[in-house]
Amino acid sequence: MSILVVGSVAFDSIRTPLAAHEELLGGSATHFSIAASFFAPVRLVAVVGEDFGDEHMEPFRERGVDLTGLQKVPGRTFRWSGEYGDDPNTAKTLDTQLNVFADFKPSLPDTWDRTPVVFLANIDPDLQWLVLEQVKDPRIVAADTMNFWISSKLEELKRTLSKVKILLINDGEIRQLTGRVNVVDAAEKVREMGPEVVVVKRGEHGALIVKEDDLFAVPAFPVRKVTDPTGAGDSFAGGFLGYLASLKDHSREDYRRAVVVGSVMASFQVEEFSLGRLRRLEPEEIRERYKAFLRLTRFDDLPIP
Amino acid sequence: MSILVVGSVAFDSIRTPLAAHEELLGGSATHFSIAASFFAPVRLVAVVGEDFGDEHMEPFRERGVDLTGLQKVPGRTFRWSGEYGDDPNTAKTLDTQLNVFADFKPSLPDTWDRTPVVFLANIDPDLQWLVLEQVKDPRIVAADTMNFWISSKLEELKRTLSKVKILLINDGEIRQLTGRVNVVDAAEKVREMGPEVVVVKRGEHGALIVKEDDLFAVPAFPVRKVTDPTGAGDSFAGGFLGYLASLKDHSREDYRRAVVVGSVMASFQVEEFSLGRLRRLEPEEIRERYKAFLRLTRFDDLPIP
Repeated sequence: MSILVVGSVAFDSIRTPLAAHEELLGGSATHFSIAASFFAPVRLVAVVGEDFGDEHMEPFRERGVDLTGLQKVPGRTFRWSGEYGDDPNTAKTLDTQLNVFADFKPSLPDTWDRTPVVFLANIDPDLQWLVLEQVKDPRIVAADTMNFWISSKLEELKRTLSKVKILLINDGEIRQLTGRVNVVDAAEKVREMGPEVVVVKRGEHGALIVKEDDLFAVPAFPVRKVTDPTGAGDSFAGGFLGYLASLKDHSREDYRRAVVVGSVMASFQVEEFSLGRLRRLEPEEIRERYKAFLRLTRFDDLPIP
Repeated sequence: MSILVVGSVAFDSIRTPLAAHEELLGGSATHFSIAASFFAPVRLVAVVGEDFGDEHMEPFRERGVDLTGLQKVPGRTFRWSGEYGDDPNTAKTLDTQLNVFADFKPSLPDTWDRTPVVFLANIDPDLQWLVLEQVKDPRIVAADTMNFWISSKLEELKRTLSKVKILLINDGEIRQLTGRVNVVDAAEKVREMGPEVVVVKRGEHGALIVKEDDLFAVPAFPVRKVTDPTGAGDSFAGGFLGYLASLKDHSREDYRRAVVVGSVMASFQVEEFSLGRLRRLEPEEIRERYKAFLRLTRFDDLPIP
């Protein structure tokens, strides 16, 4: 099944304890679509400015991402600047320039309204809603959000969530959204808001999925050198939803595998800046790291006493 | 095999966001020995004061812990007072009264010097060394430590570590001890100091074991109501080492199971204050929660594409 993603395409300037890079290709929709493209056809809806050149389209084209929905408008592309300390789970935003993103109105190209899988990346809940008004009978709508929208647009976010099947969210955000400290409690509360499935992204501590019939946890892959955590959550979402989109039906076991595939893609993402690692990633490496996850986590039952 | 544990027996006063209790039976050796007693005979070496009555001995006797090495001396028992906020991984110490612990010199009862498994709980590395000087040919020496000793007695701690086979340590402490941010890197560095096996306790984020032939991670059990995190690390150590002591030989799979058993015991420990949960724990509940860990974490390989 094809996946429609609506989100940001940006230039990121990033400082980590070991390096700094300016104007890297980034944004939630970018990281999501590249990761998802390993598993399913991806359709991208986003906006960029005049400074977004052909060379910036190249990584998407290499991966077969359909850019028909990428609007190029007068002005400069969205820019984000952030810094990481020793804790890779927390980015400090240094600067945000919305630029062309300030007036972004997602508009689906003809024939894309019947895309079966929809991912609403971390953007204004009002824009997420605009997308929901345009799609017809999607099989899966998944969404991400962030602290900024939870505090500034809670009612709008709740309207979006009422139509979302899968919410992907990090552990700080789910506590903020629900007021509950325990993540399983918090996930149950989210399920009352609409989503049947809640995936809690815990960065270097792994991920958790909560649904009516299942509770599943996986630790993060212990990446030896985390170069840049930017895009880890979106790559996770891309792997997770891409894997689901590659299947006709979704058993409980498929959802579990999807969480691991998401973790695999996030573990590659953080190894290099921007799209460095994912651009040269081979499907065989994905299968190998999935097996490494199996080895990392598998244990046997207790021998009968 | 029997386990010898040397550590603190204390009265704890604890505040959590939901409750406060005074003068609860606690201490590293207490939590360790009760948890370990489900799997192997436990010998306790510690010191208490005149205020430590028969009623305080009762929980140990119920679990068959051998108290021959428990010195009762003039003065008051060690007291610790601490507080937890919303983050169960971090305790704020409000007050510490060493009392009789200030002059504690661990002294092994006759015949205990040949105990095959030794646990040096989180006490002064000089006292840990005193124990090491008294034991003869132990099969396994395991140890815990804390930030206070890493910053104030690093050389003494390193001397102890040179004789330790298994170090159990939390993730903040292993970073402090090694100066390395990545926990796998940090564990490798610890292995250069002596321990062959490093178990990183990550509280609500689970545990990791690093040995020459293995790397294994398990998420924490998502306990719905964490009442009091005190003693979780020591109960983990008790379950982990108790399980190993119940076996003649230790395969890679046995070490993995031991990490899960430790996680099981810690997950029970935090459900109630002090020894509340462990005093009425049944072996069948341990096996059931172990199976719950299997269900929580198991996933299948990818279908061949």
